[in-house]
Amino acid sequence: MTLTDIETPAALIDETRMASNIARLQARMTMLGVRLRPHVKTSKCIEVARRQQAAGAAGITVSTLKEAEQFFAAGFADILYAVCISPDKLDRALALSRRGCALTLLVDSVTAAQAVVAKGHPFEVMIEIDSDGHRSGVQPEDAVLIEIGRVLHDGGAGLKGVLTHAGSSYDLNTPEALRQLAEQERRLSVRAAERLRLAGLPCPEVSVGSTPTALSAERLDGVTEVRAGVYVFFDLVMANIGVCTPENVALSVLTTVIGHQPEKGWVIVDAGWMAMSRDRGTQRQKIDYGYGVVCDAEGRAIEGLFVTAANQEHGIISRSDGQGGGKSDAGLVERFPIGAKLRILPNHACATGAQYPDYHLVMAGGATQVWPRFHGW
Amino acid sequence: MTLTDIETPAALIDETRMASNIARLQARMTMLGVRLRPHVKTSKCIEVARRQQAAGAAGITVSTLKEAEQFFAAGFADILYAVCISPDKLDRALALSRRGCALTLLVDSVTAAQAVVAKGHPFEVMIEIDSDGHRSGVQPEDAVLIEIGRVLHDGGAGLKGVLTHAGSSYDLNTPEALRQLAEQERRLSVRAAERLRLAGLPCPEVSVGSTPTALSAERLDGVTEVRAGVYVFFDLVMANIGVCTPENVALSVLTTVIGHQPEKGWVIVDAGWMAMSRDRGTQRQKIDYGYGVVCDAEGRAIEGLFVTAANQEHGIISRSDGQGGGKSDAGLVERFPIGAKLRILPNHACATGAQYPDYHLVMAGGATQVWPRFHGW
Repeated sequence: MTLTDIETPAALIDETRMASNIARLQARMTMLGVRLRPHVKTSKCIEVARRQQAAGAAGITVSTLKEAEQFFAAGFADILYAVCISPDKLDRALALSRRGCALTLLVDSVTAAQAVVAKGHPFEVMIEIDSDGHRSGVQPEDAVLIEIGRVLHDGGAGLKGVLTHAGSSYDLNTPEALRQLAEQERRLSVRAAERLRLAGLPCPEVSVGSTPTALSAERLDGVTEVRAGVYVFFDLVMANIGVCTPENVALSVLTTVIGHQPEKGWVIVDAGWMAMSRDRGTQRQKIDYGYGVVCDAEGRAIEGLFVTAANQEHGIISRSDGQGGGKSDAGLVERFPIGAKLRILPNHACATGAQYPDYHLVMAGGATQVWPRFHGW
Repeated sequence: MTLTDIETPAALIDETRMASNIARLQARMTMLGVRLRPHVKTSKCIEVARRQQAAGAAGITVSTLKEAEQFFAAGFADILYAVCISPDKLDRALALSRRGCALTLLVDSVTAAQAVVAKGHPFEVMIEIDSDGHRSGVQPEDAVLIEIGRVLHDGGAGLKGVLTHAGSSYDLNTPEALRQLAEQERRLSVRAAERLRLAGLPCPEVSVGSTPTALSAERLDGVTEVRAGVYVFFDLVMANIGVCTPENVALSVLTTVIGHQPEKGWVIVDAGWMAMSRDRGTQRQKIDYGYGVVCDAEGRAIEGLFVTAANQEHGIISRSDGQGGGKSDAGLVERFPIGAKLRILPNHACATGAQYPDYHLVMAGGATQVWPRFHGW
């Protein structure tokens, strides 16, 4: 099967670009002396994760128990579930653990820690640290950190370490700001680990990460592993942050021209928001890419052409300057006739991928292969 | 099974609300003397469409050939595929047609019309009319309308009529503006039909619709059928437009509290953007509901509490005034402890539903039932 046989809209993975993205972060982590535990929430695809493992990754990170179950069934045994566990999910986690999965849980409260130990099973558990104020986690200097540690350790859980995610890196766009945030993420998580150790508690692991900080950290002293997800595909949000270029983006949506509005310079394609996702993550960034950057069928970006509007199954392609301006270009109608194929680079690979039951891997020679993807919880 | 047995996040359908929504539009269409052809792209669920049929709907509208195939397999024979067909999709449409599906296609160009007739199969075809400039369709006064009609009719296709969708109704929020747009949608599509008939071409059907215009039209003279989708569930975008209230919204996301940031007044739940979708359709409306309105587990809205931020599997609930302001409310932490269940009303039912492999129907007595949903193309 080749590109021309694929019904549109379809999610394509450019194998060469993905391999390069995987190699880049893996080399960086090896150089900095830490393990890489990829976050598979981006792809939710066994075959993608196998490429990451083959390149040197150690274990995987998941965002749902369904991911944990599916990846465990496919032979991935070392799994970190990096969302604080709610008590009602513990039975499902326990079942997985008892089947032999080396499953690590996450907590950031005494309540959740108590619920974990109440199960009477020696779960491995990490404590989430808030290193940038953007989401969950305990402050590294908060007394509750030690309290949670004691509940876990005294209750028979394996206190595996601390974990943080500097998700505010998505709001930055200069190398210097990213370096500073990466150092803050490192420093505060290492500090939390030191506090636990000073309190006589075990804390073998210090896990940090987000794609922007992982690619910006200059040193990771005290850190044992890095988690990152979207680096495997990259996307336009990452390009605006500055950690990749649009030419690195390995995920794209193959689409077909279905109509035009000639006087407006609109080309209408069958990739609407259902195909691209509703993610408008570039809306407040340096360049607003609309619903995505338009490329030719081979994946080469076409200067100034974006999906500027979307209905559920209609994407509208027009000229845009990326700053809210644009112009009518009647030449587009002849250039991209009905039936023409285009590719669209997405704002956010995690969101766009989630719209599809499978990916089409496009290999260097042009042959393609179907790789299934999970959906739901 | 009841609500407490359902793992979160989960998509719930309130059966009583849905029945009321279905009855409301059906009664209105009956009163206005037109058929209702529900757009099943909203639910992509056989059972939901069966309720619409049982209430009096005539045929269904779909946005993808996968929907057409799945609904045909479930016994729905009269199907309108309301997105302009691209030539490469004709073989798939032909296969469905040959299996006995009364499938109607849509075109808005001579190129597509020629491709349809070139198949040598007597497809039923409608011509899309642009009644508000927001997307595809030919202008009702454009000479190309007659040209397309002739290509179809002379080529042996069944020229079934004209179709328009006044999707710009989503940008309005007063009854008067909606009434005017509904009348414009009616007037321009009826005018297009008249032009075809004056040219000696058949045009038995005039199909119009969007949920806001369907609920606002005062007369539909000359129209034969109305299409609407989101009315079956409604959502916060529709509440801002003014065609429903949040109390009418039948789709919600069941979620569990997984943590807090007490000093910020944040409650963190397991419904992030993967569970709510990335749709921020209320962002530019009268009230910005963030990623959704927070309700108690029974579905009663809690004044001023919205999902104000979301990560992939984390939703942050806090107080908001719906205009970009908010305040910290430490009381939320005690009111909604870890493990507490909440429901979130979505911005856009079509987008939120798409994140789930199934719905949980919640019946008046509290019993629940699983209804599968399609995914992909």
